[in-house]
Amino acid sequence: MARPSDHVDGARLWRRLMDLSRFGARADGGVDRQTLTQAEIAARAHLVALGRSLGLDPYTDEGANLFLRCPGRRPDLPAVLAGSHIDSQPMGGRFDGAFGVMAAFEAVEAIRAAGLVPERAIEIVAFTNEEGCRFSPGMTGSDLFTGVRTLAEVAGIRDAAGITQGDALAAVLASDRDVPQRPFRRPVAAFVEPHIEQGPILERDGIPIGVVTGIQGTRRYRVTVTGEAAHAGTAERRERRDALMAAVRMIAAIDRAAADPADTKLTVGMIEVTPNAPSVVPAEVLFSIDLRHPDNAVVDRLDAEIRAIVEAERGPCAASLRQIQHNPSLTFSPDLRAAIATAAGALGLPHRDILSAAGHDARQLHAVCPTGMIFVPCRDGVSHNPAEWAEPDDLAAGARVLADVMWHLATGDEVRAVAS
Amino acid sequence: MARPSDHVDGARLWRRLMDLSRFGARADGGVDRQTLTQAEIAARAHLVALGRSLGLDPYTDEGANLFLRCPGRRPDLPAVLAGSHIDSQPMGGRFDGAFGVMAAFEAVEAIRAAGLVPERAIEIVAFTNEEGCRFSPGMTGSDLFTGVRTLAEVAGIRDAAGITQGDALAAVLASDRDVPQRPFRRPVAAFVEPHIEQGPILERDGIPIGVVTGIQGTRRYRVTVTGEAAHAGTAERRERRDALMAAVRMIAAIDRAAADPADTKLTVGMIEVTPNAPSVVPAEVLFSIDLRHPDNAVVDRLDAEIRAIVEAERGPCAASLRQIQHNPSLTFSPDLRAAIATAAGALGLPHRDILSAAGHDARQLHAVCPTGMIFVPCRDGVSHNPAEWAEPDDLAAGARVLADVMWHLATGDEVRAVAS
Repeated sequence: MARPSDHVDGARLWRRLMDLSRFGARADGGVDRQTLTQAEIAARAHLVALGRSLGLDPYTDEGANLFLRCPGRRPDLPAVLAGSHIDSQPMGGRFDGAFGVMAAFEAVEAIRAAGLVPERAIEIVAFTNEEGCRFSPGMTGSDLFTGVRTLAEVAGIRDAAGITQGDALAAVLASDRDVPQRPFRRPVAAFVEPHIEQGPILERDGIPIGVVTGIQGTRRYRVTVTGEAAHAGTAERRERRDALMAAVRMIAAIDRAAADPADTKLTVGMIEVTPNAPSVVPAEVLFSIDLRHPDNAVVDRLDAEIRAIVEAERGPCAASLRQIQHNPSLTFSPDLRAAIATAAGALGLPHRDILSAAGHDARQLHAVCPTGMIFVPCRDGVSHNPAEWAEPDDLAAGARVLADVMWHLATGDEVRAVAS
Repeated sequence: MARPSDHVDGARLWRRLMDLSRFGARADGGVDRQTLTQAEIAARAHLVALGRSLGLDPYTDEGANLFLRCPGRRPDLPAVLAGSHIDSQPMGGRFDGAFGVMAAFEAVEAIRAAGLVPERAIEIVAFTNEEGCRFSPGMTGSDLFTGVRTLAEVAGIRDAAGITQGDALAAVLASDRDVPQRPFRRPVAAFVEPHIEQGPILERDGIPIGVVTGIQGTRRYRVTVTGEAAHAGTAERRERRDALMAAVRMIAAIDRAAADPADTKLTVGMIEVTPNAPSVVPAEVLFSIDLRHPDNAVVDRLDAEIRAIVEAERGPCAASLRQIQHNPSLTFSPDLRAAIATAAGALGLPHRDILSAAGHDARQLHAVCPTGMIFVPCRDGVSHNPAEWAEPDDLAAGARVLADVMWHLATGDEVRAVAS
């Protein structure tokens, strides 16, 4: 039987990734293509045009998720999906998300080039606002698609400029007038998300394919510290209610608490100071906390410690902690993990099981259909950074595994876990 | 002899302060009239119109300082100046700066209402960008006027939106087409700046008039911490170069160092994080330090400690500290202090010597002419805050002292210190 992976073209995949990286290109080689911005709208138009040139049918939904559908023999069966996201961090790289979407294009083209027509439709998907840097929290598109959140819940979230996510979605959908809209929560037979590892393990071990076993648990918080504005030159220390000094004490203590165990990931990535003027004692500070660990018990213990620290270090200020996200650790479908490992093995590609330290849209899809992820190495584990880099051969290997897995899923051969 | 102070109208002064507070009014009762903004341009137009209605001649200069001149009998003699500034902090109050300017109007009107014509011209002045919150450092107008800095030095400074101070100055001067421009560094006979105390002493002691003895020393810094952006979910703690955690350690240690002596004022009012995204380890942090103490030796010792802390706490990040301002403590003209105390005494107003904890334009003028400041109480010492408040009677008392002092200075009677 023809093997789709034989028709994967690594050079074409690389060229298309570089083409996509022009949308929102940064001078330092990175990408700033934050969700629902003009840069992403342009990238989206590019993908719709590319899909149409390949005979794929574009669809969207009220969450601005983008689907490019390759029809199968049986339109009555739910489709199999492959893809990721095309939005980036403000100082993002060229591969995070983009690789998953462009690898899905490659898989569909390879299946066709092999002269094969699948039973089920295959859809390439790019979910909206995976990153959550402009509108927080992220995973907006996959949350809406799977019903975790509703449009009403996400529409009012504002970016730093005060624009609501609802208005930003409307602007994107207006630019997609010729793309038909479908409802959320359509049945899906399976989802596969290829992605760079965003960690150092595969590169260190010299293994091109990671069979992702699951995703580590995450809690995300916002802490607001409220003090009182005062003149920097006149207000006495004992009279001050300095929101920044209270926040600094909290962050330093939280960082110390998270030093054990050593594989805890604790990040304060965002801090907003009001009024943020050099000669004014800060009246208010808002900061983010991102806490992750593979062991749910560790996350839960640190959750309690963080709450205690915020209270203990607030001094004369008021403080409130709001948990905005809590995702326990999850384990992906054993059948899909086996399908990925089998495809890699048949291609002679070294592979290993690996836990995803980062969240992905696959978390949301996991709740509604058999879901898996294919990791490929990235240099030094660097991601969310303009220096992000992956080797063309590794990306091609990931696309080859994806092509064979998608064909497998779309024909139903030997895939017991695929919903009928 | 007629006493100008008898003609000071406290109700008029209050009404005019409230009128001025409409420009840049905040919903919380405060003022956001940052320098060279549309709100300040409108306030400026209001003052030019008010001055013209009183027969005063408006002038400006390339630094957009605003002068309203009441001519004297001897145009050949340098003028005496009174005033302050009308720009505010983003979360500012109605009295900081504005009181000094409106009290100067009251003094000029009172002198005229008393039927007096001074020997020297009296000029009301509003200096540009005293606050330094939009374009840092502040005192731009008085620095330019007195020659401390040149236009070339200040023009390239950018606000948070990337606008240069030079472009912002040009926009204001364009709106002042009908106001004649004069050169910087014109000779001045004397300068008096009335101001709210911005501290708790006068209110606590129940004394309406503070004879300001001098200004406490200040050092201002910017610290840049450079780390590396990384993914919050995947980058291991030991591999991170987290710019925010390094900055937090520095700020916490600097705050502890500044706890002794207890009257040290140490403020970190501004912090900018790049990329400031919740799921990205911060790549760079810029923060401000504002350090003040009346004793230059204390400031110098803490300067050395701060430099050592920045180096000691940077961890795997790079750090650079830049001192952007250093003003040693200064003592105002004994003659002017005596003139203010004498005027207050003649009016039966309780007065006391007081050190200014905050910087003022008077610092710059002190370098070129006999200079003094009159403080009035403000509630709870609160300033740089929408809740800033001063009692109408105290403001009127300050304006009365100013009126008599300005008459004294403008006639030259008994004022040995005034330059010819």
